Formats: sequence, C-alpha cells, structure tokens
Amino acid sequence: MAGSTFGKHFQITTWGESHGKGIGVVVDGCPAGLALCESDIQKFLDRRKPGKSRYSTPRKEADRVEILSGVFEGRTTGTPISLVVFNQDQRSRDYGDIAAYYRPGHADFTFDEKYGFRDYRGGGRSSGRETIGRVAGGAIAVKILSQLGISFLTYARAIGPVTIPQAAEDLLAQAQNNEYSSLQEHILSDPLYMPDSVSSEKAREYLENCMKEMDSAGGIVEGIITGVPAGIGEPVFDKLDANLAKAIFSIGAVKGFEIGAGFAAAAAKGSDNNDSIHMKEGRPCFGTNHAGGILGGISNGAPITYRAAFKPTPSIAATQQTINKAKEDISISIHGRHDPIIVPRAVVVVECMAALTLVDLMMENQGATMEHLQKLYS
Amino acid sequence: MAGSTFGKHFQITTWGESHGKGIGVVVDGCPAGLALCESDIQKFLDRRKPGKSRYSTPRKEADRVEILSGVFEGRTTGTPISLVVFNQDQRSRDYGDIAAYYRPGHADFTFDEKYGFRDYRGGGRSSGRETIGRVAGGAIAVKILSQLGISFLTYARAIGPVTIPQAAEDLLAQAQNNEYSSLQEHILSDPLYMPDSVSSEKAREYLENCMKEMDSAGGIVEGIITGVPAGIGEPVFDKLDANLAKAIFSIGAVKGFEIGAGFAAAAAKGSDNNDSIHMKEGRPCFGTNHAGGILGGISNGAPITYRAAFKPTPSIAATQQTINKAKEDISISIHGRHDPIIVPRAVVVVECMAALTLVDLMMENQGATMEHLQKLYS
Amino acid sequence: MAGSTFGKHFQITTWGESHGKGIGVVVDGCPAGLALCESDIQKFLDRRKPGKSRYSTPRKEADRVEILSGVFEGRTTGTPISLVVFNQDQRSRDYGDIAAYYRPGHADFTFDEKYGFRDYRGGGRSSGRETIGRVAGGAIAVKILSQLGISFLTYARAIGPVTIPQAAEDLLAQAQNNEYSSLQEHILSDPLYMPDSVSSEKAREYLENCMKEMDSAGGIVEGIITGVPAGIGEPVFDKLDANLAKAIFSIGAVKGFEIGAGFAAAAAKGSDNNDSIHMKEGRPCFGTNHAGGILGGISNGAPITYRAAFKPTPSIAATQQTINKAKEDISISIHGRHDPIIVPRAVVVVECMAALTLVDLMMENQGATMEHLQKLYS
Amino acid sequence: MAGSTFGKHFQITTWGESHGKGIGVVVDGCPAGLALCESDIQKFLDRRKPGKSRYSTPRKEADRVEILSGVFEGRTTGTPISLVVFNQDQRSRDYGDIAAYYRPGHADFTFDEKYGFRDYRGGGRSSGRETIGRVAGGAIAVKILSQLGISFLTYARAIGPVTIPQAAEDLLAQAQNNEYSSLQEHILSDPLYMPDSVSSEKAREYLENCMKEMDSAGGIVEGIITGVPAGIGEPVFDKLDANLAKAIFSIGAVKGFEIGAGFAAAAAKGSDNNDSIHMKEGRPCFGTNHAGGILGGISNGAPITYRAAFKPTPSIAATQQTINKAKEDISISIHGRHDPIIVPRAVVVVECMAALTLVDLMMENQGATMEHLQKLYS
Repeated sequence: MAGSTFGKHFQITTWGESHGKGIGVVVDGCPAGLALCESDIQKFLDRRKPGKSRYSTPRKEADRVEILSGVFEGRTTGTPISLVVFNQDQRSRDYGDIAAYYRPGHADFTFDEKYGFRDYRGGGRSSGRETIGRVAGGAIAVKILSQLGISFLTYARAIGPVTIPQAAEDLLAQAQNNEYSSLQEHILSDPLYMPDSVSSEKAREYLENCMKEMDSAGGIVEGIITGVPAGIGEPVFDKLDANLAKAIFSIGAVKGFEIGAGFAAAAAKGSDNNDSIHMKEGRPCFGTNHAGGILGGISNGAPITYRAAFKPTPSIAATQQTINKAKEDISISIHGRHDPIIVPRAVVVVECMAALTLVDLMMENQGATMEHLQKLYS
Repeated sequence: MAGSTFGKHFQITTWGESHGKGIGVVVDGCPAGLALCESDIQKFLDRRKPGKSRYSTPRKEADRVEILSGVFEGRTTGTPISLVVFNQDQRSRDYGDIAAYYRPGHADFTFDEKYGFRDYRGGGRSSGRETIGRVAGGAIAVKILSQLGISFLTYARAIGPVTIPQAAEDLLAQAQNNEYSSLQEHILSDPLYMPDSVSSEKAREYLENCMKEMDSAGGIVEGIITGVPAGIGEPVFDKLDANLAKAIFSIGAVKGFEIGAGFAAAAAKGSDNNDSIHMKEGRPCFGTNHAGGILGGISNGAPITYRAAFKPTPSIAATQQTINKAKEDISISIHGRHDPIIVPRAVVVVECMAALTLVDLMMENQGATMEHLQKLYS
Repeated sequence: MAGSTFGKHFQITTWGESHGKGIGVVVDGCPAGLALCESDIQKFLDRRKPGKSRYSTPRKEADRVEILSGVFEGRTTGTPISLVVFNQDQRSRDYGDIAAYYRPGHADFTFDEKYGFRDYRGGGRSSGRETIGRVAGGAIAVKILSQLGISFLTYARAIGPVTIPQAAEDLLAQAQNNEYSSLQEHILSDPLYMPDSVSSEKAREYLENCMKEMDSAGGIVEGIITGVPAGIGEPVFDKLDANLAKAIFSIGAVKGFEIGAGFAAAAAKGSDNNDSIHMKEGRPCFGTNHAGGILGGISNGAPITYRAAFKPTPSIAATQQTINKAKEDISISIHGRHDPIIVPRAVVVVECMAALTLVDLMMENQGATMEHLQKLYS
Repeated sequence: MAGSTFGKHFQITTWGESHGKGIGVVVDGCPAGLALCESDIQKFLDRRKPGKSRYSTPRKEADRVEILSGVFEGRTTGTPISLVVFNQDQRSRDYGDIAAYYRPGHADFTFDEKYGFRDYRGGGRSSGRETIGRVAGGAIAVKILSQLGISFLTYARAIGPVTIPQAAEDLLAQAQNNEYSSLQEHILSDPLYMPDSVSSEKAREYLENCMKEMDSAGGIVEGIITGVPAGIGEPVFDKLDANLAKAIFSIGAVKGFEIGAGFAAAAAKGSDNNDSIHMKEGRPCFGTNHAGGILGGISNGAPITYRAAFKPTPSIAATQQTINKAKEDISISIHGRHDPIIVPRAVVVVECMAALTLVDLMMENQGATMEHLQKLYS
C-alpha cells in the first residue's frame, strides 16, 4: 500500500486535499448488520470542527458527511462504505503565497523533495483536513466497539505546560462511580476538551498569551479504553501497543507516544513497576496498571491507557527564517486563519485512530483458536 | 498477517520459541546482488548476546546463525533468505514451575487468555529470544543501507534514573568531527553500550544496588540515523515516524517512543520548536532538529533521532503477588538466570528494527514518481 | 483487506452499488508527475458503456467520471486519486421484485448466506456496474504503461460458439506490419469488439437468435500485451500469470483463464510445446510463444497472450426454477433491460485488470536488485 | 510482499532452493489448539515424492519434514509453525552444465533477466522442489478443514491426450454412495493418481511412448471440494474463484484454470448454463453445478469443482535450439533424471493450494457480520 490505507480487516482508505473538491474515506471490511446513519458519523466530525472556541481557526467548515455506499435500509451491508465531505470554504487566496517557499515545521519541503512538486493549497494532502477521513471511519469503529461493551474516554491531558493533576486511573475511578457519562459530557463541553475545569481555565490563559505573542502551543492527549476483553493483540509485530503507536503517530504533529507508565517506567524498578495480579469478584485483576492494560502486546482486561504528545502548531505569525523554491534564504511571517493550538481538535482524531486499531485487532483475534472457528462453522 | 511478518517490500517473518528447537527468520524481498555471509549477521547477533557483562544473564547462548537459502556464490539471489539459530542451552528445569502461575509483568496471563494455553518454557514465543530473528534480518537491512550511505548510532541514553548529559545533536556534532567511528567503537566496547563513560560508571553502581535488592531496572535507548535522503516515508498512514513507532514498540518491554524533541515539544511554543531552514554549502539545512529529521512523515535530510523507553525486567527475585491457573491468589519469588536490565542488549534490537523500517520505506519510495519508473524502464 | 482492494503498489479500492448514489475508486500509489485529466479515463469508461449496439442493455448510463483528488495542475501528485461516477438511471422499480427470490446464476443467494441480507437493487455490489471502478483505475494504469512503451490489444475471441479463426500470434504479426493502430481502431469500431468482420457478422446472427429465444450467450476475451520488458513478475506466489489469473477471474462471470497455449498445452508434448530461443537483431527471441510471454512466472520479453471465458448472462426471460426467501420452490421469468451478452462490454474490463496487474508488478520489480536501489539513491 | 508469502490470515512463507541446504515454510496464523505432529504433514509430502512409479524421476528424495516451532505438547500454540525439509540428494554435477545456457521452457532466462544472475543448481528457486513448502503448509490447512467437515478429492483428469470419461459430478455421485473413502484410496493407489483404471492404463501406454521418444507429457488435474458452507469468498477482488485461480496458477507449469463448466460455459446458452435452485430435504440445492459451487465469488454450498492444465515437462532429452549466456545460438540436449510428466506429483500440490485458499477465506469470513463478532465477544 502506498500509505493511504490503514487496517487489515477493518480497513480505511482516505483521500483528499485541503482545497480540493472534497475529503473522503472508503471503509472496507465493516461487518454487515450494523445500524448506521450519517448522524452517527457527523457527531464525531463535529468534535474536530474548528470555530467552536476562540482557540481554533475561525474558518467555517461545515463538513457535512454523506454516505455514498455500503448502507442499505439503515444497516451496513458488508460492502465498502464510501464517505465524503465536500469542501466548501476554499478561499485559495489565503494560501497562494506559500507555493513559492517552504514553511518551517510543515511538510512543504519534504513533499517537494519526494514528489517533485506539491498541491500547495492549504497544505494539500498534509493539511489537518486529511483527518476528516480518519474520524469518519473511526466513528464507525467506535460504534461497533460500543456494541461489544467497549468505551472511550479521550481528553487533553496538557495544553502547553499546563497539565491536569489527575492520573488516568484517578479519572477512571471517578468515572466508575456511576459518573462515567457525566465525565464524558463534561469533557465534550469543555472548550479545550479537558476533564478538569481549573486546568482548563489556566490553559486558556496560557493560550491567550500565546496568541498575543503571535505564537502557538502544543500539548498532550490522553485516552482510556475500558471494556476491552483480555486476549486482543498479536504477540510479535502486531502487538496492540505497537499498532496503537503507529496509528497515533500517523496523525500529523505527534512527536511522542506512551502506554501506561510510559517513559516514567524507564526510571522505575521492577518491584515498583510490575502490576500484581489478584482475584476480585471471581475475576483476575491488577493491583496497579503501569502496563496500561497490555502485556506482551496483548490486552490483559485492564483499562488501556495511552498518551500522545503534539508539537505546537507550526504556522505562526512571528517572523521565521526559511528558503524559497529557488533555494534562497528568506524571512517569512505566516498570516491567515490558523489554530494557535490543534490539541483540542486532535482529541477525537486520537480516539478514532485508537478505535480503528482496536476493532481491527479484535477481528484478527477471531482466528486465534480452533474453538473460534468451530463456533462459527459447526 | 498474523503478526509474525514485518515490512511490505523488505519483509521479515520470524518464528521460534525460547526453548524450542530454534529461532529463525525468513527475509523476503532482499534485493539481489548484495554480498552476504554469515559473519555479516553474526556480528549483530553477538551484540545482543548475554554474558558480556555481569548485568546480563549468565546463560550461555552461542547463537550461531546459519544461512539456509537465498545466497549463492556469496551474493543474495533475490529469493528468500532463511536464517536459523538452533537452540542449545535448553535447561527446561529452570522454568518448569512457571507453567502453573502467571508472572507479573510477563505475557503468561495474556497468552493463556488468547490461545487457551501456552508454551511456558522460558517464555515461549514472548521470550526475549524472539528478537534473534529481528536482529538477523535487521543486520541485512543495515548492510544494504550502509551501501547507500546511511549510518546508525544507537546506545543506552538512560539506565534507570542515570541519564547521559549530552543531547543526540551534541553526540552527533562530536561524531562529525571525524570521530564517528571512534564513537561507535566506544559505545560497542562499553559494557552498557553507553556513549559516556562517567554515566556508564554511575549506571553500573545503580545496577549493583538493584541486584543486591533483588530488583531490576529499565532505561532509554536512543538512536541517530545519518545519511537518509530527503523524501523517505509515505505522507498519511505509513509515515516514517509512524512506521518507526510501530517497529520499536513491537519490541517487548517498550512503553514509550519519541521522535526529535518528543514529549518536550508538547510544552514548547511554535517559535521555539520550529526548525528554521537555510542554505549551507548549496544544500538546504535546518537550524535545529526538533523535528528529528522528519516533517509530515517524510525525511527532510537531517539526522533522524528517536528514543524508546524500556520498562524494568519483570522477572525479579523479590516476593510478588499473583494468581495461579486455578485462579487462586498466591505469592511467588522468581529465581533463575535473568537479566537485571535488558536495555544494553536491546540497543542492537532497536537499531535493527529502525533499519528494517527505513529500508522498507526506501523501497516503497522507488515508486513515488514517474521519473523513477522511467529511469528503470527506458 | 476485505476484498475491495487490488494491488500492492498501484492499489485500487472500489466501492459502490448498482443503484446507490454512485460508483467509485480510490487509486493509491500512482506515481507523481503523470499528466492526467478526466477524458483520459472517460474514453475507457465509454468502452464499457451499454447502449452502443442492440446487443447490450438499452439502459442509458452516462457514466461521467469526476476526479475528486490527487491531481493538481494537470498532473498526478502521488497522493490518492479519488474517482467517482454518480448514478443517474436509477429506476428501482425494474428490480424491486428480485428482493424476494434468488435469481439462478446470480449472487443473490450467496450474498444473503454471507451477510444475512443484501442490497437487492440492480444486483447491488455484485452488479456489472461494479466494474466501473476497475476501468477508471485501469485507465490510469494503461496510461502509465503506454509511457513505458507497453501496448494492449484486447478483443472478443469468441461469441458463443463463433470463434475468430486467427491465433493471437497471427493478429500480432499482422499488427506489427505497421497496422497496429488500424487493428486497434477496427476492434474499437466493431459492435462486438471483434477483430475479424466475418466472425463478427456470424456472431451477430447468433445473438439475434439468442434474443429471439429469450436466451443469452457467453464468449471468450483474448488479450495481447506487447512491449513488456523481461523480468516482470515474482517467482513464487506473485507470478505474473498467477496475478493475472486472479485479476481476470475476479471479474464477474469469468469461468476460465489461460496463458499462451493454455489448456491445449496439457495435451501437447514437450518437444512441441517448448519455445526455442534464438538471437535476432542482437536480442533473444522465441521461435514460438506457447508460453504466452511468461516463464517461471516472469515475463520473457515476448508478447503476453491470455484468454478469459465468460459464462452467458444469467438474466434471461425464459422461465426458470428457483427458490424464494421463504425457502419455497418457485418459477420465475426475469424481465427488464439486460444484456443478452456481456462479453463485448467486458473487453475493456479485462484490459484494465491486466494493466493494473502489470503496473503493480513493474513497481514491485523496482526492488529486485541492489543495482536498482543504487540507481535511485546515489 | 516479494512473492514468497501466500494468504492473509492463514499465511505461508516458503523458502529454499533445489540444491541448497533445505526447503521450508513458515505457517503464520494457524489457530491454536489443533492437534499436529510430523506424520500429519509427512503423508502429504509422500504424495509428491518422486520414485513412486517409473513415470517420475528416479532421484531419491527422502524429504523428511521437521517441525521446528509453533507446536507444544502436540498442539499448535497459535504462533508460527516453522517446517523444514533438509536436502540430501545434492548431486550438483548433474546440473552444473546448465549454468552456461538457458533451457527452453524453464525460468533460467527470466531469472537472469530479473536478478542479474541465478542459483542454477537444479533450477534453484524455480525447481519443482519449491512446492515442498506449499505441501507442508497445505497439509495443515487440510487438517483444519477436515475438522470443519470439508473434504478434498483431487486426481489426474488427463495425462496428455488421455482423459477420464467421467465428469466430476459423476465421480462425486459415485463417492456419495458411501464409496467416498474407497474412491480416495483408489486414487492414492493409482500410479498416476487417476480415478479410472482403464484411463490410467491407456495413459501409461502413452507415457511409455513419450519416454521412448525422449519426450514429455502434460495433463489436467481436477479437484472437488465438498462440505464447504455457503458464504465463503469476498465479493469483489478476493472472490473464492479468483483466489483459487491465483493459488493454482502460482504452481509452476500451470497454463490454464477453470471453475465448474469453465471454457465450455463460453459456448453455452444462459438457459443451459444457469443452475436451477430447489429445496431438497429442507436445504437449498442446485439442479446442476455448472457454477462449480461458486456464485458471485462466494460459495453456494454445492461442491467446488475446478481444473488446472499443466504443460509438458520442459526438460527433454531431444535436441533443442537455445542461446547461451554469451548470447550465441546453440543446440542442446538435456540429460539427467527428469520426470517425463509432473502431473501425478502435482495432484497433491493443487489440493494443498486449494486448501490454503479456502482456509484463508473461511477465516476472512469470520468478520463478515456483527453477529459473528457478537458471538465471540459477548
């Protein structure tokens, strides 16, 4: 594959450029019989839509999804589901001048090196709008998983240097006290998708300052997946954590990824880092969850916890040094409608990539034992 | 694929259990015409061999590789290269008792949940010996890349809390002053594969204490790849960083992965994090390398820098709580010949997985333009 | 993959149902820099359009293709090319009654068995309209190959029992006497896409009779590919002939496939079937071409010749026995606008599938030797 | 993949040259819990062993298989199964002289064109010995399928011009009268693996004449698969018949492939070729089986019937014209221990490739519906 397809069983192929006719995705391998309509997908796209706060680009992107195939009488048919969002806000003038030079921190230079030229309008294929296809496909994955008892909690853990004080496990403990859906609602209503109001307030102050300085910020997205049965993930190269790492790292601007204790585990001792196992209400449980729900690449039944680091938005109004296509040193200052931070809008993208990874490995696991085959074919 | 194959063009399929008859790899897609003999591969396997210092298991593993196919008259033929290391030191008694319970931090529990039973001898397929196949295949990838002008520098950046003070860029600057090969030699001769003698000494003290306490340590492996041409990596899902993330995360015990500035980028501002571009001796260069050599998933010609966090070895002699197969709470203490730390032995595994990723994407890039096709077929 | 993606390098993913909103294809892996516009693709789609003679369905299918992505300023960018044909002639009433029973020779029964239900409108995903995506993608493959000196000659060899008398080699010999393009034009202007006017006339008489009897006919499509360099195809599972066989056999209604001498070779002796090799004008040539241009799965530089057998159109007005969804025996008679034969319209589909197979293996072959890699990266 | 891997779920990767150290296969994706020992595999390898009659090479090939991994305490563990046959009869002198020229009908010329040189000993990778890996892997596939109620009947339908008079359906009808196993035994005991003693006798006379004339013969292998549930196969590119076509066509010397009525369908009328459907003992049945058990690429529950045409063995002692590596015209006469016909030995190879294809698509079908997923995960 040439890099536009993800997944082996539940497989998405995305296409489209920022300022082309549209952005789309073909979802192949979706099981037949899932109730599906456009609003199931639209509510996920709305979570990545800009303009929901003053910390995202004021561009208006309606981003209405259309189902073109694969659904009949309200249910998936097992054949490919083609989803498209036609582009509407295509003011090419905003971007025309970037044809001639390479923006620092963007893929302009590398696309030209690779392909000889590039669709420079709005970043072309390397625009953040490319994630529309991921989210549209991921929304279906989330719906399938929800029918198998699996839930996602995804939020901004850090905005620039402002980090929420709670560990993922604390949020989860809180959520398990019958407040799961209210925590989800709280996150979705927060302008930065943070689970903690005090941190969100501080983060907004930080962003105000960034904007005054014509600068931008990064941050950390954290996710918790609950309800995953033990046994998901393949033991060598297609480990659950390895596939998650690839999935999340394939989102533009991601520079780091962790599972469970992550980098902190590197400095810990085995006696601290190992999660003890004990029986609780007849089921195996873990005393702690430094493993983040994965042992040897295979889910152990505990919540899966992970984090992704996003770099600051590279488009800033401050003056920067770069080169032009004629290979001359120049100074530039990028104007236009850019997000001072992409982390809040990236939250749903991270969740969708995690869901795509998980549903794919759950389908892979259908072939793990003779017992599974016999259950189906006898 | 069921998880034992890695790569699309240069493709390795590994097999074998810790205490089975052997461990092996089939390398398919290796270009014809590469001079190759067993010693090319053996020298990489020797870097992961235990027993080289008192910080690795005293088990004797000769680990002699044999080439069974794909090489004729000293050159690769383009057909699959089958490599095998037959197991010799198979003292099953050491491990027999682990059949009945689940070691914390190991894959015992998850294998049983997935497959219904497991080859419990020495960890079976989830043993560290599984990496022999990766290293054998990776050695060939490194050789191919060296003929294309690409070099690898890989070392332990941290052992437990002891971290080398130099940034990757400093080591590289040092290496570029005609000391590259002497730096490589220094690393290979250090018992912990650290580039800094003072840190290595401190790290050894730390490990002595761990061992006294019957405990274990983790650490961080860092890698620098130089000479990679701009343009390598596919722009959406098969980004160079995404594929590296998967490759490295598929190594057992890895809990975190970063490119360039990594998690630190999350707290930085755009004006600091963006790497300026300027011309130097007629070639585009970058003022800094926070991007770690990759923009939009595609190499930009700067050195590729990355880090992987390894958790502490889970096998410790200290008492731990777990459950047995009868689902009863028990206390255990794991004895036997275990590494108090696996990081030094993992250095070559990380390097090999990076090389496998890179050669694969360089072959993928052969199809990027009509010009490439015309160069070959006209 | 779940069966809607074809190819490893030049990869097409098709979607769409006969009576859904549209039919499309995403082409991923197309090299950058190919001049491409909609008319390049439209002229191939027009070859499969119905209504060009009285032997195809009188349904009006405008089938206008739109390029939605992957082309910028008239050239491919290396990113996915999304092509769509929106459906227009959607008279669902024609097909509504087939919801309740299973048409003999169609996929109605097997779709229901596999997925539990089906989009019964016009055959849904198993309609011949599914091939629109193949032809749209294949048109690009043909254009790439034409720039590498490769040409396709594809035609109806047999319509029912009426077979052209010339062997592929004779047609080719005729074509090489500077009549290649006139032969191509002749075929394209024949209402049945036959290269021989006398046979075409007889075939039309045969079809007239079929139509009178409310019956249908099958036939054989033959293809010749010239200009393929020696060395294309992988020696074991991805043999050029094996991949062609899969490609062609994946077209609905194909029941047989042959390369070169095909089934006739089974009855021949080695001394007759072997193609002698000799030098001609400084190049290796073959005395005969029973091999059809492929030895050991790899092209030998001679023209590639192949044939595909198509069964008669299963939709016939004559009375047939079948069962309904309630699992009761019933008699049916299928009315509506059906092709009495699909072979002429299938000619371009066969050509396109062959082109997709060939371009994919030519890209695969870019990685065959170290010399190829060094040509690109040094 | 570079052509040495087959399958997506049940995946085999083969390696090895005719006169190298050995031939092997790695089977990845075999479900855990299958009872498996070396004799399960050996009995399939014995069916392809030469020397069983005077119509195959008198070379002695013990071909003893060893299981190197993936089986523990007599059952598959879900991890890769590595199988190897070490080569023993390596009289290189027999073949040394073929280094300098290209044998007509062999892959010598195409390997050199593709890779620049070749392992010329005994045909290297393009030798018939390459099929050992296929048969070893296929034996496991057959065993899995037998536990799901699926049986294979495979035999020589034609040897040169001598064809058995019975249609596949007649043999099957005969077999269903409680004579299935006796028919299988009869075939296995026939020196040419033919189901009809009279034809076998005639075929042997034909072969005696071929041998006297220093010539060789081809033939047709036919297979019948019974017990396949309806619903197997993916509707577009991974049709059951398309994947079978590729699988069978990837066997060296195959020049044609048919399903059901095959090429005969091309000349038939729809009213004859359509298989009527009716209820019989509460189950849907087909009046005839021209479809060969497959509609729209998906199994319909009827027996799957297919045929493969094999060309005559290209190695003949008669004088032939060819060229040498210096590109000069020469005359050669190939001596040595060659099969005058490979069809009988190919029977088991065809059966194994069919089994590999089928088990793979049955695993793919595990993800076809939400119901399947819910059956496993709830």
